[in-house]
Amino acid sequence: MNASPWKMARRAERMNPSVIREILKITEKPGIISLAGGLPSPYSFPVEAMREATALVLRDAPREALQYAASEGFAPLREWVAAHMAAQGVHVDASQVLITTGSQQGLDLVGKVLIDAGSTVAVEAPTYLGALQAFAPYEPEVVTVPCDDDGPIPEALGVARGARFLYLLPNFQNPSGRCMSESRRAALIDAARAIGLPIVEDNPYGDLWYDTPPPAPLSARWREGTVYLGSFSKVLAPGLRLGYVIAPPAMMPKLLQAKQAADLHTPGFNQRVVYEVIRDGFLSEHVPTIRARYKTQRDAMRAALEAHMPPGCRWNVPVGGMFFWVELPEGVDATALLPKAVDLGMAYVPGAAFFASEPRANTLRLSFVTAAPDVIERGVALLAKALTGDR
Amino acid sequence: MNASPWKMARRAERMNPSVIREILKITEKPGIISLAGGLPSPYSFPVEAMREATALVLRDAPREALQYAASEGFAPLREWVAAHMAAQGVHVDASQVLITTGSQQGLDLVGKVLIDAGSTVAVEAPTYLGALQAFAPYEPEVVTVPCDDDGPIPEALGVARGARFLYLLPNFQNPSGRCMSESRRAALIDAARAIGLPIVEDNPYGDLWYDTPPPAPLSARWREGTVYLGSFSKVLAPGLRLGYVIAPPAMMPKLLQAKQAADLHTPGFNQRVVYEVIRDGFLSEHVPTIRARYKTQRDAMRAALEAHMPPGCRWNVPVGGMFFWVELPEGVDATALLPKAVDLGMAYVPGAAFFASEPRANTLRLSFVTAAPDVIERGVALLAKALTGDR
Repeated sequence: MNASPWKMARRAERMNPSVIREILKITEKPGIISLAGGLPSPYSFPVEAMREATALVLRDAPREALQYAASEGFAPLREWVAAHMAAQGVHVDASQVLITTGSQQGLDLVGKVLIDAGSTVAVEAPTYLGALQAFAPYEPEVVTVPCDDDGPIPEALGVARGARFLYLLPNFQNPSGRCMSESRRAALIDAARAIGLPIVEDNPYGDLWYDTPPPAPLSARWREGTVYLGSFSKVLAPGLRLGYVIAPPAMMPKLLQAKQAADLHTPGFNQRVVYEVIRDGFLSEHVPTIRARYKTQRDAMRAALEAHMPPGCRWNVPVGGMFFWVELPEGVDATALLPKAVDLGMAYVPGAAFFASEPRANTLRLSFVTAAPDVIERGVALLAKALTGDR
Repeated sequence: MNASPWKMARRAERMNPSVIREILKITEKPGIISLAGGLPSPYSFPVEAMREATALVLRDAPREALQYAASEGFAPLREWVAAHMAAQGVHVDASQVLITTGSQQGLDLVGKVLIDAGSTVAVEAPTYLGALQAFAPYEPEVVTVPCDDDGPIPEALGVARGARFLYLLPNFQNPSGRCMSESRRAALIDAARAIGLPIVEDNPYGDLWYDTPPPAPLSARWREGTVYLGSFSKVLAPGLRLGYVIAPPAMMPKLLQAKQAADLHTPGFNQRVVYEVIRDGFLSEHVPTIRARYKTQRDAMRAALEAHMPPGCRWNVPVGGMFFWVELPEGVDATALLPKAVDLGMAYVPGAAFFASEPRANTLRLSFVTAAPDVIERGVALLAKALTGDR
């Protein structure tokens, strides 16, 4: 028998390589200024605190940290998350907190327990690419809720009627950078309740605000109709792969079984180390240093865009998060432009990848968190050069 | 709207709490001697080597270790795995190695890319419960291949014709402890090739042999028709959650996309720490110490079984791995017996949970790796007492 004996699942056809990860490979060429990836600045990682915490864990509880552990997660870390959520107005019991291997795993688990093949999932336009990839293997029909600069439009929510859930990122959205106002949150929850449309709220960037904190999570307004995803990737370090899901009590047993089946549990060593780092209030000192760093970089990107970009381009200044979302003049295709930009020495992510339907070819995403201000300035200048040469 | 707005996926109904994890909760009562869980002895964890390696990684490459990383895994670790496999006769390129968050994740990813709802998956009788749980969300029909004390019977493989794959554990199987002979491996691969039945080979226990190493993996005999799952959980520590999948080149892109969707990547910090621990041959010194420890514990369990168990019970002495598989007299129900055993102060896992179909009620699994010899002796004596009182 020489032919391959393997037959792939139907869902495998719907899985595609991450555009972003493919672009990241291109940008690994030396000398390329990448404004493409959403990599946190490595200078924001609390290396010294990590050193102390790992030493402590390996001194005080090495055998517990290296042993199999509860699928739910490390109990003190779950308690910490519950307290952290309460401070934002989301009152949950620690038993409603499931620790995940990054919040990407939260998306996978939510998809696994909620999506049937052919059922509908609603998303924003644009939306987080990684969520589309997490949901795709479960074969949903994806509908896009019309959005404006304040997020999904409550009056337009009818298109999502009957969907298993609406997935959204209210704070400094990836990729658009937008932040939903207090009044939009209220109106959106009212509209969602009215049609019985539950919400999966993803909040990896909420702590990265540069002027004032964002309004309370949507989950604070409709506890039984929301699932909330959080992450330590942006406030500590992504290489630890630590996130969490908060869900209504009735959903927890199924999420937990999905978690067991997926990887038994998130590394206990990592959970204990992170708990040691954060238990005594470290984040209240550390996160402001990240904010200050990123605010400076955001301001550098704003200044560079204003200085270099040709007329006809549009962007909003994000009040938090990691990204500028740039609209090029109509008719300019950001995907077609990318090789030219890379030739000139910079990279970005074309915006088309972030739309579940009707991609807008003239959009692109720029990250301001990875590179230092002078590098951002040079990168944006190169983008402008690619663009000007293209017109 | 007071009713729950959530509708669960059909697959969620097929997901059930892990019997073993539920039992493990019972056994957390103080004073219970648990021979139930498959927890490696915490005294086998290389704590000192871990201390050195974490310090080294956080000194030499902290920002790389804490940053987002490649979905495929840390390149030097992938190279190490390829070399480790070559030493067992499985010649693969490092590009065929995908690092996973424990080998449980390997089972999930394999299920995700290979199983369609209603398609068939073939397993041994009994088989690893965690694999059944990993596959269940993808809604396969599970068929059981008839087995004897040497594993699946080649002449009986016809029942699996047309299955997406046959899942098996050739070395010191969980739960039966059996190890497939060289001749059985050869005959099984011949029979599988003849009907075009690919094989998913799970080998978490292969290094834990107590007399002579097991025969070469089945993957050495049919490279393009096998996927191989490996783990660092039993030779280093399970709390790190590090495993790997080796697959034919054509399958790698889909496995990689499934991995990206599942958790982006396995924690880079953990990968680098483990690589530092093992890079210079540490395992060739360390694993023999684990073997010596577990061999002593196996011998203690054998002696205890011989000393205490009433007539009519049957077991084989495992030549590796972690488990004795005990057959009680016909008519005795190990699930019904468990509360009595727990009342007396010991716990085991009833064997019925390990069968995809036709559970054998009179079987149970005993782990000899967690407890010290004197504790094993007392635990088995209590089991015998529960059993004798029951008859």
